[in-house]
Amino acid sequence: MTRSHIVIVGAGFGGLSAATRLAGADVDVTVIDRRNYHLFQPLLYQVATAGLSPAQIASPIRAILRRAANVRVILGKVTGVDNGRRTVIVEGGTLEERRIAYDYLVLATGARHSYFGRDEWEAAAPGLKKIDDATGIRRRILTAFERAEAAQSAERRRQFLTFVVIGGGPTGVEMAGAIAELARVALRHDFRNIDPREARVVLVEAGPRLLAAFSPRLSEAARRSLKRLGVEVRLGARVSQCDAEGVMIGTESTRERLQSATIIWGAGVAASSAAHWLGAEKDHNGRVMVGPDLSLPGHPEIFCIGDTAHALDTDGKPLPGLAPVAKQQGAYVAKVLRARIADRAAPKPFHYRGWGTMATIGRRAAVADFGWVKIDGTLAWLLWGLVHVSFLIGFRNRIVVMLDWLWSYVTFQSGARLITGPGSH
Amino acid sequence: MTRSHIVIVGAGFGGLSAATRLAGADVDVTVIDRRNYHLFQPLLYQVATAGLSPAQIASPIRAILRRAANVRVILGKVTGVDNGRRTVIVEGGTLEERRIAYDYLVLATGARHSYFGRDEWEAAAPGLKKIDDATGIRRRILTAFERAEAAQSAERRRQFLTFVVIGGGPTGVEMAGAIAELARVALRHDFRNIDPREARVVLVEAGPRLLAAFSPRLSEAARRSLKRLGVEVRLGARVSQCDAEGVMIGTESTRERLQSATIIWGAGVAASSAAHWLGAEKDHNGRVMVGPDLSLPGHPEIFCIGDTAHALDTDGKPLPGLAPVAKQQGAYVAKVLRARIADRAAPKPFHYRGWGTMATIGRRAAVADFGWVKIDGTLAWLLWGLVHVSFLIGFRNRIVVMLDWLWSYVTFQSGARLITGPGSH
Repeated sequence: MTRSHIVIVGAGFGGLSAATRLAGADVDVTVIDRRNYHLFQPLLYQVATAGLSPAQIASPIRAILRRAANVRVILGKVTGVDNGRRTVIVEGGTLEERRIAYDYLVLATGARHSYFGRDEWEAAAPGLKKIDDATGIRRRILTAFERAEAAQSAERRRQFLTFVVIGGGPTGVEMAGAIAELARVALRHDFRNIDPREARVVLVEAGPRLLAAFSPRLSEAARRSLKRLGVEVRLGARVSQCDAEGVMIGTESTRERLQSATIIWGAGVAASSAAHWLGAEKDHNGRVMVGPDLSLPGHPEIFCIGDTAHALDTDGKPLPGLAPVAKQQGAYVAKVLRARIADRAAPKPFHYRGWGTMATIGRRAAVADFGWVKIDGTLAWLLWGLVHVSFLIGFRNRIVVMLDWLWSYVTFQSGARLITGPGSH
Repeated sequence: MTRSHIVIVGAGFGGLSAATRLAGADVDVTVIDRRNYHLFQPLLYQVATAGLSPAQIASPIRAILRRAANVRVILGKVTGVDNGRRTVIVEGGTLEERRIAYDYLVLATGARHSYFGRDEWEAAAPGLKKIDDATGIRRRILTAFERAEAAQSAERRRQFLTFVVIGGGPTGVEMAGAIAELARVALRHDFRNIDPREARVVLVEAGPRLLAAFSPRLSEAARRSLKRLGVEVRLGARVSQCDAEGVMIGTESTRERLQSATIIWGAGVAASSAAHWLGAEKDHNGRVMVGPDLSLPGHPEIFCIGDTAHALDTDGKPLPGLAPVAKQQGAYVAKVLRARIADRAAPKPFHYRGWGTMATIGRRAAVADFGWVKIDGTLAWLLWGLVHVSFLIGFRNRIVVMLDWLWSYVTFQSGARLITGPGSH
């Protein structure tokens, strides 16, 4: 009997968790990803706001799986799945063959931004999912200050110094806080014609409060912390127009134009194309509906995890799109597969053990919601740092990020204020 | 009387050295650069070979000059000089005005690659001057290993595992050594189908020896060290053809085709367009011929320094294109200008105090030529590291780079193996 072949598409939190837990098992594993690195997305906003360098929050997938002799890694872009012939179709990458056969398939392809059908807004309001998104946003933010410094009219100066962040979830809150802090702290003495502290940072949220996944008390704490940093928070404000010169926002009664050269999208996410590849049933966010063991109904050999899947917890509630959920799902699928291959009884349905959620706002300002206890301020901020550093992959990254944070905290300087990439000369 | 206005174009070693030494003087200074950061070019090859991150060897110009209240910084691309009206023409940058008037002008615009009239080779054989060059070359090198891993034929595999570096100066020697080491050390356990140690690194030099600026004994030491790392050194070999599939090299008697997917250009440099802007006399590398005080003959208000200038030392010998020369010239011009403005006597003609030159090859292998003493091996390598770290701008960068090197040395891993940028998905 030949060994089973498990193909895992995507090396994010879910895919990597499955792969590492299949290391050493009596199976062949292939991990396919479009990129050669695993990205620690929760800290990506710090790259976008010049706090960290890309290499500090990304590790080569090969290096992570180096010792797993039964796991191979392929750099390639999956464009489809043939679930009849049990093959994955790969394009664009380095692979010369086009199809890879599988016995079991784990789809952990994550999510991308959703512009709610207004994809034309993307050019003016980029989102934050990849490293190149982050260095691109960093370029926009830093260039806006440069243009403000060089502007000839007060009106233009104001436009360049206005930053609009759309979406009051963790990404939006963290971005808005970090931009305000960059302007008020790190860039403080850098210019001659402008005072960066005059920068106007507007956080626009359509719902009635920030951080809807947290308790109302913490939402309010986040709003207050942002206000203290000088961020204007607009709740109940929906974006109706978005272009290179600014956004139009409407609250119930009023419509208002915000002239801004730098707009950042932190609003919707939509699952990747996995549901489309499988021809499977999906929810309104494009996530594949999966059963209690995370497999596709009618296809016990196909699993979807993380942001790719719409899964219900044992209490019947849908699972949130969080890194710990994806990680635990990856580990769970590995367990299911190990049992299946060894002909052992299947494990109990997937259940998520949530420890809590956190978001950071700025220097000594964060919120943490553990269910049984809700904290904000300095303690939450320290905890946030500790947890995020400890989950970084690679001992070196942990050390270097910690040193970088300590350094920035002490010196009020940020580390990676480089304008690089296309169009930066 | 209004204060004099000094415009410095370029914030490399020369320009920055002039600017910092004019801080606090009774003049207004404007520094114009196309980029928002000063780049420590001697370590750029380590970014290209995945050892360091861009932010570790680059510092924002504004941050460096933050405390110099009489110095302003402009992000912009100079496209010309009107020496009649004493204005600099700026384009493409953030500036809305197009012309900046000067009383004194310092051109420190550096050099770019020269393909000796074969500019069509650039696409296949990129050079290394900017951060985006370095991350682009890093992407090419890492992708080549990925493609080799996925290749279907032994021939393709060999092509992807062949790296050709053109030019046996410090850049070429350091690049070739670093690629060989990356393959033999850091990537060693990362692949399943290939053994990265089989990578073939060929260093092609048209002249009779490597590192022509060093003593013949050190050239030979460098060649031996490279050989020990597995690098094939081809001396007296001229490149006659260069395309995406490989290069054609010819020695006196033979012509040989090297099939390679990754070619790196470390050969010629040519000065930037300064001579063209000024309509000035230039040497065959495009450098402006300047007088003993580094000013343009007939234009005592215009100075050229660093790679922009062809200057003679007090002994009549032309000065080499080295970072320390540029730095000392920047400091010298600042002194000349301070004297001029204060109506003091002009300083003596520029004289370069050279301490020596160094190049590194790999782990515990480097050469250092101090004139009176020539060393190679571990001691030269340690010295090289010490000197390069100490010249990095920013205390944090020094610490972080040192830790990174220490870490890589101890763990045999390299830090920034990320494939990013256009085309990397």
